[in-house]
Amino acid sequence: MEKILSLRYEDGSLVMIDQRKLPLEEVDFVARTYREVDFAIKDMVIRGAPAIGAAAAYGVALAAKEFEALEKEDFLEKLEESLGVLNRSRPTAVNLMWAVKRMRRLIESNRHLAVRELSELILAEAHAITAEDREINLAMGNHGNSLIGEKATILTHCNTGALATVGIGTALGVIRQAHYSGKDILVYADETRPRLQGARLTAWELLKEGIKAKLIADSVAATLIRDGKIDVILVGADRVAGNGDAANKIGTFMLSVLAKTYGVPFYVVAPTTTLDFDSASGRDIVIEERDPQEVTHIEGVRFAPEGIEVYNPAFDVTPAENITGIVTEKGILSPPYRESMEALRRSL
Amino acid sequence: MEKILSLRYEDGSLVMIDQRKLPLEEVDFVARTYREVDFAIKDMVIRGAPAIGAAAAYGVALAAKEFEALEKEDFLEKLEESLGVLNRSRPTAVNLMWAVKRMRRLIESNRHLAVRELSELILAEAHAITAEDREINLAMGNHGNSLIGEKATILTHCNTGALATVGIGTALGVIRQAHYSGKDILVYADETRPRLQGARLTAWELLKEGIKAKLIADSVAATLIRDGKIDVILVGADRVAGNGDAANKIGTFMLSVLAKTYGVPFYVVAPTTTLDFDSASGRDIVIEERDPQEVTHIEGVRFAPEGIEVYNPAFDVTPAENITGIVTEKGILSPPYRESMEALRRSL
Repeated sequence: MEKILSLRYEDGSLVMIDQRKLPLEEVDFVARTYREVDFAIKDMVIRGAPAIGAAAAYGVALAAKEFEALEKEDFLEKLEESLGVLNRSRPTAVNLMWAVKRMRRLIESNRHLAVRELSELILAEAHAITAEDREINLAMGNHGNSLIGEKATILTHCNTGALATVGIGTALGVIRQAHYSGKDILVYADETRPRLQGARLTAWELLKEGIKAKLIADSVAATLIRDGKIDVILVGADRVAGNGDAANKIGTFMLSVLAKTYGVPFYVVAPTTTLDFDSASGRDIVIEERDPQEVTHIEGVRFAPEGIEVYNPAFDVTPAENITGIVTEKGILSPPYRESMEALRRSL
Repeated sequence: MEKILSLRYEDGSLVMIDQRKLPLEEVDFVARTYREVDFAIKDMVIRGAPAIGAAAAYGVALAAKEFEALEKEDFLEKLEESLGVLNRSRPTAVNLMWAVKRMRRLIESNRHLAVRELSELILAEAHAITAEDREINLAMGNHGNSLIGEKATILTHCNTGALATVGIGTALGVIRQAHYSGKDILVYADETRPRLQGARLTAWELLKEGIKAKLIADSVAATLIRDGKIDVILVGADRVAGNGDAANKIGTFMLSVLAKTYGVPFYVVAPTTTLDFDSASGRDIVIEERDPQEVTHIEGVRFAPEGIEVYNPAFDVTPAENITGIVTEKGILSPPYRESMEALRRSL
C-alpha cells in the first residue's frame, strides 16, 4: 500500500528519498554511518518531525553496527558520542530528541548485554519506532477518514505526508485513507510559501498516489473557502498546547480564520506525541524566524531587490477556538480541548 | 518629486520601464507600434490599471502616427482596428477600456479633421490622460494621507505604486505622501504570489524612496493583523462595483477578512475611473485565470512536479462590507457605498 517510503533500512544502510532534489529528481541518499545520517538531517535530505526521529534512531543503529568490533567500553563510548551528535542535528525537533532519549534509555538498561546483542537490540528498537509511527499514521488516517464525505473537496497546507513521516502521513495520511477507501476526493494544496513544501512535496505525493489535486498560491484559499468550494480543511501541527492552540507552518492561522468566518470545518491532524499537555497555551510557543533568503530567493534565484528587509516567521499559532477537532491516533478530540486532552492524557 | 516614471513618450515612441526585468535589471522597453504596446500590456512589461490605460492611449497615438500616410478612410479603419486590439490586451482592466473608449469618442467627434490633425489630437489626448493620472494620484495621496498617523505601520499588497500608474501610485501613492510629509512609517509589503509584484516591484519602489519596509510572505500578514502590529491596510483596486465590492489582486480578499475580524481599518485606494458605477455588485466581475507556470515556475525554473494541475486566479473580489473606506481623488467614500458612490457620480 505504501507508495512512498521516506526511509528504509536496507543491507545495513539507511536509504532515504533525497528530499532536497524533489520533485524534479527522484534519487536516494544512502547513509552507511551515523555521521552520514547526521548530515542528512542537517542538510534536509530528510525532514518532518516523525521522519527525523526515525532517521536518528537508525543513526544510532548504524553507529552500533559500525563499532561492533570494539571492546564494550569503547563501544558504549562511541554510542554515547553518536547520541550526542544526532541529538544536535536539528534544533527544535521534538521527535528527534524523543527518539534519541528512547535509544539512550534502551542502551542504559541493557549495558549488561554483549556488544553484538546490544547492537541487535538497538536496530530492533529503530525498527519498532518506525513501525509504531506507521501504525499511528494509519490510525490517524482511519479516524480522520470518518470526517470525509463520499465526495469531498479538501484543502491542505504544507507537507504532512509520507515524506514528513515514515508512514502515510498525518493530514495527508487522512487524505490517503479517504482515497484508498474509494472516496471521490479533490485536494487543493497550498504551495506554502516561503519554502514551498506544498508545491514541491505535497503535489508530488498527490501525483504519485493518483489523487486529483490542484496547486494554489496560499492566498487563493480564501476565495475557495468563501465560495463554498472546500468541504474540510486538514492541517498538521508541530506542537499542540494544553488548551488546544496549535503551532504549525506559517499560513495555518490565516486558513483557520477564514474557515471560522465561513463555517468550514478545520481539523488539526497530529499524533499524541505532538500534544504538549503541560503547556498552558500557544502563547508560550516561541516562533522561530528563518533565513530571509527563503523569501527573497527561490532555487537560488533572487527576485526581491538587494537590501530589502524581511520578516520570515516559520510558524504561527492557531487558537483553539478556530479548530473544529484534533485528529489523533487515539481518536478525534473535540472542544473544549483542555478537557478532552486531559481525558486523553489519563488514558495514555 | 517623481523618482520613478513607468512610461514616457519620447521621440515618437512609448518608453516603458520593463517591469518583467525588475528589480534585478533596470531597463527600458521601447514600443514603436501599437502592436508592440499590445504586446507590452499582454506580456506585463507594463501593468497596473492606470498605467495600462495610459499605455493603451499612447498605443492609439502610435497607431495614428504609423498610418498617417494612408487615405482618411483607411486611416480610420486602421485606428478602429488598433482600438479593438488594445481593448482586448487585458481583460478586467477597466481603465484600459475607459482609455480606449475615450480615444474612440475623440476620434468619432473629430472625423472631419485631416489625418495629420487628428493624429496630433490623439497624441495630445494621450498626454492629457497621463497628466490627469498624475494629478489624480497626488489628490488620492493627499486624501489618503489624512488617514495615516504621525507614526504608523501600514500593510500593503501587490504593487500600486509609480510602476502601476504614471504618477506616484494609488495605495503606494498614499504611502509616499505620508513619507514625504515627514511621518514615521513602516511598511509591510506582501510579496503577492504568484507573480511576486510586492517582492519585485513594491520592495524596489520602497527602497528607492528610502521608506522603512519589510517584505513578508502573503500568509504572514494574518498574524501581524491579529497581533495589533498593523495600523492600517491600504490596497488598490482593478474595479469597484456600484455597491462598493472591489476586485483586486488575488490575496486582497483574504486581508479584508482578517482586517474585519481583528478591527484593522482596510482602505481601497482607487481613482474614480476605476469605479464601475453601473455594475450592481462584484458578482458580475469575471475573474481572469492565468498561466499555471506562474505558480509552478520562478524565473523559468520549475519547482512543482510536472503534471500537477494548478488553479491560478489573478484577482479576487472583496465585499463592500469588509472595506472601511474608498479613497478617490475626489475624497474618501464611506459606506453605504451605493449612496456615497451615487453622490460622487452626480458630482463628476
